[in-house]
Amino acid sequence: MSLPRIAVDAMGGDEGVRVMVEGAALARRQHDKFSFLLMGDSARIERALEAHPGLAGAAEIRHCDGLISGDEKPSQALRRAKGTSMGEAVAAVKRGEAGAAVSAGNTGALMAISKVALRTLPGIDRPALAALLPTLEEQDVIMLDLGANTECDARNLVQFAIMGAAYSRIVTGRPRPRVRLLNIGTEDIKGTDAVQEAAQHLRAAKTLAIDFDGFVEADKINRGDVDVVVTDGFSGNIALKAIEGSARFVTDLLKTAFRSSLRSKIGFLVSRPATELLRHHLDPNNHNGAVFLGLNGVVVKSHGSANAKGVANAVTVAARLLEEDLTARIGEDLGELGDSLMANGHRASAAGAASKVESEAK
Amino acid sequence: MSLPRIAVDAMGGDEGVRVMVEGAALARRQHDKFSFLLMGDSARIERALEAHPGLAGAAEIRHCDGLISGDEKPSQALRRAKGTSMGEAVAAVKRGEAGAAVSAGNTGALMAISKVALRTLPGIDRPALAALLPTLEEQDVIMLDLGANTECDARNLVQFAIMGAAYSRIVTGRPRPRVRLLNIGTEDIKGTDAVQEAAQHLRAAKTLAIDFDGFVEADKINRGDVDVVVTDGFSGNIALKAIEGSARFVTDLLKTAFRSSLRSKIGFLVSRPATELLRHHLDPNNHNGAVFLGLNGVVVKSHGSANAKGVANAVTVAARLLEEDLTARIGEDLGELGDSLMANGHRASAAGAASKVESEAK
Repeated sequence: MSLPRIAVDAMGGDEGVRVMVEGAALARRQHDKFSFLLMGDSARIERALEAHPGLAGAAEIRHCDGLISGDEKPSQALRRAKGTSMGEAVAAVKRGEAGAAVSAGNTGALMAISKVALRTLPGIDRPALAALLPTLEEQDVIMLDLGANTECDARNLVQFAIMGAAYSRIVTGRPRPRVRLLNIGTEDIKGTDAVQEAAQHLRAAKTLAIDFDGFVEADKINRGDVDVVVTDGFSGNIALKAIEGSARFVTDLLKTAFRSSLRSKIGFLVSRPATELLRHHLDPNNHNGAVFLGLNGVVVKSHGSANAKGVANAVTVAARLLEEDLTARIGEDLGELGDSLMANGHRASAAGAASKVESEAK
Repeated sequence: MSLPRIAVDAMGGDEGVRVMVEGAALARRQHDKFSFLLMGDSARIERALEAHPGLAGAAEIRHCDGLISGDEKPSQALRRAKGTSMGEAVAAVKRGEAGAAVSAGNTGALMAISKVALRTLPGIDRPALAALLPTLEEQDVIMLDLGANTECDARNLVQFAIMGAAYSRIVTGRPRPRVRLLNIGTEDIKGTDAVQEAAQHLRAAKTLAIDFDGFVEADKINRGDVDVVVTDGFSGNIALKAIEGSARFVTDLLKTAFRSSLRSKIGFLVSRPATELLRHHLDPNNHNGAVFLGLNGVVVKSHGSANAKGVANAVTVAARLLEEDLTARIGEDLGELGDSLMANGHRASAAGAASKVESEAK
């Protein structure tokens, strides 16, 4: 296992210190080998820790005066990262004082700061943002990239597939996760050049421990028969938000319908255990914790509006990725890809293979 | 009004002739000025017409032996369009025998055949597929492109905005429809170069009768505060399918939840009028009929799995677009755009303005 210490930006998120500290305390109950570095206003963190003696005994506070705000541009945040709770949480991972950082702050700023401080793994050109989404089956599906990279080429997509599969192996226990590229149809001729090229290369990479079978359409993401959905950050962000918005749309309609008559109000009360099940399944807090994959270190983004249970889920994601050594696993898989492409008469190294993908995609 | 005759491809769709004919008959009740050209197997059409004497009196049958199948590639469909029910429905619009064509067949084939037969309006480079989606408010939102153009530049997006607004004016009666570009954030710096360039040009086009205010994210499409959502065909198709899939996902979860106990089964029966309301609101048949905008003529795509009510909606879309002269209106708006860009020091003609958009987008 990587270093069992997690740096938490205690200042990010809409609810601030109390929720971040309570979330860390909840997560620690399942992962009691972990210790914590809490970055932010020490007086407020100490006050929040009073309610959580277990966490207090396993946490070190690092006072930071600075704060990255929600509307700060990534470039600006980058310049003044030093001394902020977010910047110092990531810096702790860089210095090897923590294995992972968790923040509920500004996503673009966290991405920029993490990329510059931690740098990408050898063989990875760009990190990607990955999240777990609920499905009709028990297991969640991983989708990436969700907005870190607006435009992607085939080489980026192939790397995302490998990173997503490594993450999925940890989450699902499946040795060969079912990986698909998000597309507007399942026929070979559909989609952009980048998507088609990426599909060719993933099909050719036979020794890679993934079950790749082409494309998935956006209405089938939640069916539970795919483990990893790979896409560029523009389409991925749109798919993710469309799914969230549509789910909220239907539940809003349902609420209105239940309120529309006395009879339906009574029906609602009677069937409450059923609608509560639905609410639990759709609660974003239960799927909180998006991961920046492809960096030298684990960085997890908690949603700004997450409650303590949501923050606990994000911290748990960080803990599991450290326990299972995600970073090392991605490195091994990139080596595999190099070998498999060599066996098909391509160049040997992962970097070489990737640059070939790129040149062919042009 | 344009020519009040609609050519119907009676052979397309999963259910075939009976549903297409019944749909046309239903639509004709609201639009009794319209007559019909029914293309396909004359024996089967005649049989289906027996149940609909009103339509039979207003319909002419054109026998066609050929049929475009659902899995045919657009290029292949194009070569053998002549003599097929789909090809002849579109050809009737080209020859001026009908103002609009409706088909429930292969979307890619219908697009290719329509584009070649009808050609794009002056000032339009590429037609786009537009559909109505339900919102929390009474009025539907129009989204385009939904998959006709996998990759789009700023010039395409500006043209889609104009075409979508013209369609929205007919549907909503709003003189200045609220138009937004689909993006992954609402800040100016977000998104692809094409999206940013298109936003600049739409902001500058002050005399255009649209209320353009930048970007909308995919979770806010259904809120009812936007009339037209403009995007490229790749993202639009993904957003549309993600919305459909997510709505189905939630209703499937709800069904499972209602079945989970006797209590919830009883609750379901009591609240049935409420859940029926939801079902009605989400029924895709109530929003059936996607339009290929930007052609010299109206072509409407009915969903392959639509029932007679769904087909009636698609035919009604065609009828309304003819009554309101959509094609002529788009032409006028393109002229407006030319003037407005000239006022800002750009070139005068719409085509010139558009080619400037393109060169700047590079």
